[in-house]
Amino acid sequence: MDFTTAIGLLAGSLTTIAFLPQVIKTWKTKSTRDVSLEMFVIFCTGVFLWIVYGALIGDLPVVAANIVTLSLASTILFFKLKYR
Amino acid sequence: MDFTTAIGLLAGSLTTIAFLPQVIKTWKTKSTRDVSLEMFVIFCTGVFLWIVYGALIGDLPVVAANIVTLSLASTILFFKLKYR
Repeated sequence: MDFTTAIGLLAGSLTTIAFLPQVIKTWKTKSTRDVSLEMFVIFCTGVFLWIVYGALIGDLPVVAANIVTLSLASTILFFKLKYR
Repeated sequence: MDFTTAIGLLAGSLTTIAFLPQVIKTWKTKSTRDVSLEMFVIFCTGVFLWIVYGALIGDLPVVAANIVTLSLASTILFFKLKYR
């Protein structure tokens, strides 16, 4: 793996893992009052399009990272709708 | 502009704009109790590395989108630290 791909995979890992603490926090507190519904609706739509873009340019870090990001972000969106 | 670049710019626009409702909500409520500090620390670090990655592969949508995303996400992080 070259340096550039390593940076891409690290970037993707971090922006993906980042949503896990929010999932855990919301899971524990069942409270989403301060979390923006609009943010997660728009964000999930955008991440889906990042997956499409990554597939079109054949870029593995973009596709892989965004599939996991979408899973976590959509879980937060689900919690927001459930615990609103 | 070709279709692929248009998808990339749309994806980047959405995952960037997504943070604006959270910035506005937090600005109005001054409340960040339900927002995860760890999420925004890790996310901002990851977005910075996406900018580096985009520069390394010479990809305009990745660089441009993530510069704006970093501005908004770091504003939310600032609010989280200020209104904790």
